[in-house]
Amino acid sequence: MKKKGPWIQKTVQSVYENPWIHVEHHDVVRPDGKDGIYGVVHFKNFAVGVVPIDDQGYTWLVGQYRYPLDVYSWEIPEGGVLEGEDPQLGIQRELAEETGLIASEWVELGGFHTSNSVCNESGRVYLARGISQGKAHPDGDEQIAVKRLPFHEAVEMARDGRITDCISVVGLFRAREWLLRNGGKV
Amino acid sequence: MKKKGPWIQKTVQSVYENPWIHVEHHDVVRPDGKDGIYGVVHFKNFAVGVVPIDDQGYTWLVGQYRYPLDVYSWEIPEGGVLEGEDPQLGIQRELAEETGLIASEWVELGGFHTSNSVCNESGRVYLARGISQGKAHPDGDEQIAVKRLPFHEAVEMARDGRITDCISVVGLFRAREWLLRNGGKV
Repeated sequence: MKKKGPWIQKTVQSVYENPWIHVEHHDVVRPDGKDGIYGVVHFKNFAVGVVPIDDQGYTWLVGQYRYPLDVYSWEIPEGGVLEGEDPQLGIQRELAEETGLIASEWVELGGFHTSNSVCNESGRVYLARGISQGKAHPDGDEQIAVKRLPFHEAVEMARDGRITDCISVVGLFRAREWLLRNGGKV
Repeated sequence: MKKKGPWIQKTVQSVYENPWIHVEHHDVVRPDGKDGIYGVVHFKNFAVGVVPIDDQGYTWLVGQYRYPLDVYSWEIPEGGVLEGEDPQLGIQRELAEETGLIASEWVELGGFHTSNSVCNESGRVYLARGISQGKAHPDGDEQIAVKRLPFHEAVEMARDGRITDCISVVGLFRAREWLLRNGGKV
């Protein structure tokens, strides 16, 4: 028996594990005192995303097919960072892999939780400036497209629902707010 | 064998199910032609969130402990809508349950996917205006706090990372953009 906020955790049973997630079934006592259950999806990686913006006010989006949803999705460069790895180093690596971009200035734009009723997935978004172009080398399980577009057009896509990926929407809007407060071009 | 974008789905095995999620283990061929696996978390509910804004420019946040993360989280009113239920009717019900609020004007602010590398969770956010106050009656598994605050303060919390819940950050920023374009107070 373990107190978790207004819940009591009675038993924990591991029901599935792969290299990315670990699913547990919990018997609990709910906040109202009644017995209940909770299925919890643990993520092994920390989610990081970055909004790169160059001196011309352009950003980059990455397009890829998302298997769980069966949809094609345009997103900011994102990736999973292993436990113990520095998130900023991790996203620098992901950015270079997916787009070939190298950035000299990094701004932290705060943390997020993607799906807190079921998952413990946590992450952080960054703004990257001082951009130079290297060579991309994506992972084998990724088949991705990269496009460069004006930052304000990407924000427009986040606003009107053409971008649905929550990490991207959070990153683009927080980047816009940071630029508005710091004299950047939006 | 089933083609799914650049992936091939070879086998699907159900590994866990409860009233809210269904977890599957897939054997796949990856986009690079190599064999791989995919753990997919299916959500049975559609996620809906609403940003209510009254004539004084105030909104409401709901505070609750989030069991999977072991954190206390301030969020816009949110809920899960059953398959077949109209999302707008569903969020009207959730808003009334959690806060007692009734709204006469509803604006759709577009869809989102919370965690598209693992989960198929989809949802939609709304802006609600023409607010009047009824009586709240939260679910037994919810122990929630409700606070009314200026809308611009809630946006500030979404910007600086005091609000981490992605659905809330997406809802608040999209609501702000809608108001900016439609002459509302931000």
